[in-house]
Amino acid sequence: MDQDCAALIVEMGVHSRHAARTLAMVPTATKAAGLRAVAAQIRRDSAAILAANARDLAAASGLSPAMIDRLRLDEARVAGIAAAVDAVAGLDDPVGRVIDRRERPNGLVLERVRVPIGVIAIVYESRPNVTVDAAVLSVMAGNAAILRGGSEARESNAALHAAVVAGLVDAGLPADAVQLVPTQDRAAVGALLGAAGIVDLVVPRGGKGLVSRVQAEARVPVLAHLDGINHVYVDASADPAMAEAVVVDAKMRRTGVCGAMETLLIDRDYPRPAELVEALQRAGCEVRGDPLEASIGEIVVPVRDEDWDTEYLDAICSVAFVGGVEQAIEHIAAHGSHHTDAIVAADERIARRFLAAVDSAIVLWNASTQFADGGEFGLGAEIGIATGRLHARGPVALEGLTTYKWVGTGTGQVRG
Amino acid sequence: MDQDCAALIVEMGVHSRHAARTLAMVPTATKAAGLRAVAAQIRRDSAAILAANARDLAAASGLSPAMIDRLRLDEARVAGIAAAVDAVAGLDDPVGRVIDRRERPNGLVLERVRVPIGVIAIVYESRPNVTVDAAVLSVMAGNAAILRGGSEARESNAALHAAVVAGLVDAGLPADAVQLVPTQDRAAVGALLGAAGIVDLVVPRGGKGLVSRVQAEARVPVLAHLDGINHVYVDASADPAMAEAVVVDAKMRRTGVCGAMETLLIDRDYPRPAELVEALQRAGCEVRGDPLEASIGEIVVPVRDEDWDTEYLDAICSVAFVGGVEQAIEHIAAHGSHHTDAIVAADERIARRFLAAVDSAIVLWNASTQFADGGEFGLGAEIGIATGRLHARGPVALEGLTTYKWVGTGTGQVRG
Repeated sequence: MDQDCAALIVEMGVHSRHAARTLAMVPTATKAAGLRAVAAQIRRDSAAILAANARDLAAASGLSPAMIDRLRLDEARVAGIAAAVDAVAGLDDPVGRVIDRRERPNGLVLERVRVPIGVIAIVYESRPNVTVDAAVLSVMAGNAAILRGGSEARESNAALHAAVVAGLVDAGLPADAVQLVPTQDRAAVGALLGAAGIVDLVVPRGGKGLVSRVQAEARVPVLAHLDGINHVYVDASADPAMAEAVVVDAKMRRTGVCGAMETLLIDRDYPRPAELVEALQRAGCEVRGDPLEASIGEIVVPVRDEDWDTEYLDAICSVAFVGGVEQAIEHIAAHGSHHTDAIVAADERIARRFLAAVDSAIVLWNASTQFADGGEFGLGAEIGIATGRLHARGPVALEGLTTYKWVGTGTGQVRG
Repeated sequence: MDQDCAALIVEMGVHSRHAARTLAMVPTATKAAGLRAVAAQIRRDSAAILAANARDLAAASGLSPAMIDRLRLDEARVAGIAAAVDAVAGLDDPVGRVIDRRERPNGLVLERVRVPIGVIAIVYESRPNVTVDAAVLSVMAGNAAILRGGSEARESNAALHAAVVAGLVDAGLPADAVQLVPTQDRAAVGALLGAAGIVDLVVPRGGKGLVSRVQAEARVPVLAHLDGINHVYVDASADPAMAEAVVVDAKMRRTGVCGAMETLLIDRDYPRPAELVEALQRAGCEVRGDPLEASIGEIVVPVRDEDWDTEYLDAICSVAFVGGVEQAIEHIAAHGSHHTDAIVAADERIARRFLAAVDSAIVLWNASTQFADGGEFGLGAEIGIATGRLHARGPVALEGLTTYKWVGTGTGQVRG
């Protein structure tokens, strides 16, 4: 069966490469028209999509209420998926953009031009909307997509994929631009992850189990984040009202997102630490800290060592005192996950030191970590947030789904 | 021993990470001063370096004359290594450069700022100069380097590494900025390649055997090229004098470089194909083609199918006739290695089609493929040429040894 899956992925890869070569040449207006046709088709197919989703829900067993919620579609969610496609159709197309241009003394003109990456595999779990989001982001950046969704959403994904393909074909784009792996055999994921030279990039979308499997097994480049162990450091110079607002938002606006704060670092010289903790508690957060700390010891739950390395994704927060910005930087270096970390401070010199020294994809000064989002960054939709170091960091949107090539134009130059 | 090597690499990695965090903050002038101190130290240590090299040469057995030549140092080569270091010291520093800046409607200002990658491992073979080139490029871009040279050059590498460290320390930079793996145990390479989270990037420098091993085994990102199966397509519209000059230079200027042409594609409507072949032959090149082709059949060596996929790195060239630019594009898609491909044409429409459709790191119009070089591109020294699709393509110079982070500055914004 592993052999069958490997052969299947090779065959799909050939189709994807062919489609990718076509897509790389398609003008922006045609790609946008294709996406608008996809949105229209999703709206037309809404009843069939909801019926397929009802079959998935009926077959679901052993799923948690949270997983059921992620799987469930309704008319509003289908309308939202279609609207998101229209929004991607309106984004600036990075393909063809000249990044830089230099003329050499010999007259050779060298430009770096953005081009699509090629074939992108997206491996995801129960959210059916990823079928559409990932597909249209890939196509808008000129790439072919190979999708592998979770078995619990197979009927929903098949219905949404059919609508995507019908829309693209309507607009004259290749049907193989977006392929859905037709088997739920887990070996197909292994084959995708091992498909060096066939798949150019893998993007995992889902829980930590999925992302860590992809990172451990992949023989092709991966853009992903495993953890969001994000910190807010409140400096002694911080305005207390601002600090409370930022900290409460960073933790409690939504506790289940990767940009949520997990650990609060408080400068020992900050005058109102208990008020920070109490603000979190009023918002419904359990705060874990050192019971021996005079200012907060009596109001916190005792913290354990493992808390500093825990992504709660819940209404829980650890709090530590540090002796200024340097200790905050050290704490983040020891326990952070290179995702998003923030400082609240009035002292610009201290803030600049934090922004420079904290080695995370996103560093923020006087703003909530919950801004870690492609839409909030003005990038439009994102395919994910990357905490690796190469290619793209932070929210990965259309530009992150492209690469570049060098284009040189001469008049017969030889190196001689 | 594998366990020992793994432990060694972890320990070196801790030192490198520490050094990398320091280097990331070092101003350009200090890094440049460090490099100039390295160049001065190499000049001062010239006799010791040459003595070490003599020991390597004396111990060399079973090496080909070409490998001996790559290993051998003399006063001029040592002076050249030092001069190359001074040249890198004068390059523009990408670190700290703001790539883009956007102000959001809520007042949050988001900048993308270039930062070092972190810890870069360079795995290389017999050329001792790589010890210095790779080290100073890494450090100038703010990275720590872990070097693993070939056993045949171990004494030379140790002497050059000592000079590098002495120079850096002289200028106040950390000694661990450049570490040399102290064992020639091959398991150390495996440990480096598997060191996800410790090593951020691996750059292999050497022959195809080394590069393919690194690409196959690495669990960390790799920037490299395996092959340079480069093409020149001569269109019917090409000026024959330009075509001959470009083709002969692309093949024969230096036959052993990765930018050398390996296959010549001639448009069936090009009027003077035999003259192209004869020009190559006059320059000393064996030309392999189809003996049944009327215009060149009697003057070429019969070509075999495997020639189209062969990187000769020698004074040998295959030649094929194609029915116009589309067939040239198809031939390159089937047989190319995504390195460097060129078209000679007077017809701009045809040239633009070629430049857009050929999926290589470098595409050239009316210029020799031998320009595939960081220096020729105006980038200064390069750490290598990359034919992968992510992060950096073509010559990888200082900018390719950096990544970016998002820096957001607010006034207390919360997402709410």
